[in-house]
Amino acid sequence: MIEIRWNENGLVPAIVQDARSGAVLMLAYMNAEALRLTWETGEVYFWSRSRKELWHKGATSGNVQRVREVLIDCDADTILLKVDPAGPACHTGETSCFYRTLNDE
Amino acid sequence: MIEIRWNENGLVPAIVQDARSGAVLMLAYMNAEALRLTWETGEVYFWSRSRKELWHKGATSGNVQRVREVLIDCDADTILLKVDPAGPACHTGETSCFYRTLNDE
Repeated sequence: MIEIRWNENGLVPAIVQDARSGAVLMLAYMNAEALRLTWETGEVYFWSRSRKELWHKGATSGNVQRVREVLIDCDADTILLKVDPAGPACHTGETSCFYRTLNDE
Repeated sequence: MIEIRWNENGLVPAIVQDARSGAVLMLAYMNAEALRLTWETGEVYFWSRSRKELWHKGATSGNVQRVREVLIDCDADTILLKVDPAGPACHTGETSCFYRTLNDE
């Protein structure tokens, strides 16, 4: 296993990408426990910074994300998850959380 | 313009994706000045957290990243840049910084 460089809060950003379409779906944060659960169960877990608790993505909505591949970048401080999503990634119902351009509104 | 939610250090993570291939190339951080320069010049700038200075991606290597689209996520705390890269994103020479799986080594 590659040793992860956790940030000052013990977290690492994790990018979620649709393994099939290549769409970038969302970015959230993992602590060591979220990464362990993701690795062991094959479904994505994060650490919710607002709620300060583990967050099993899709546990309530049903839109879980099945993990195909866990990649890490050259300096080991960012994770890229390639997943098969069971439904939209975004709480708004959009497929991806990145549905707006910066100059919208 | 959508108002960005900068983190406690005045930064926002920016995911860089190849506009053509869909490959996720890298993740780095922007401050307001890096975002302004990216927006105005059409080439990607970051804030280097290690060197504590603005970083024009590719300025020395020639591997600049031309911006096609600047997207922002639903809670406005992550940026997704779709780019045309002039060469490899990674300092190792790999196309993407995400060239390893977590269980490598």
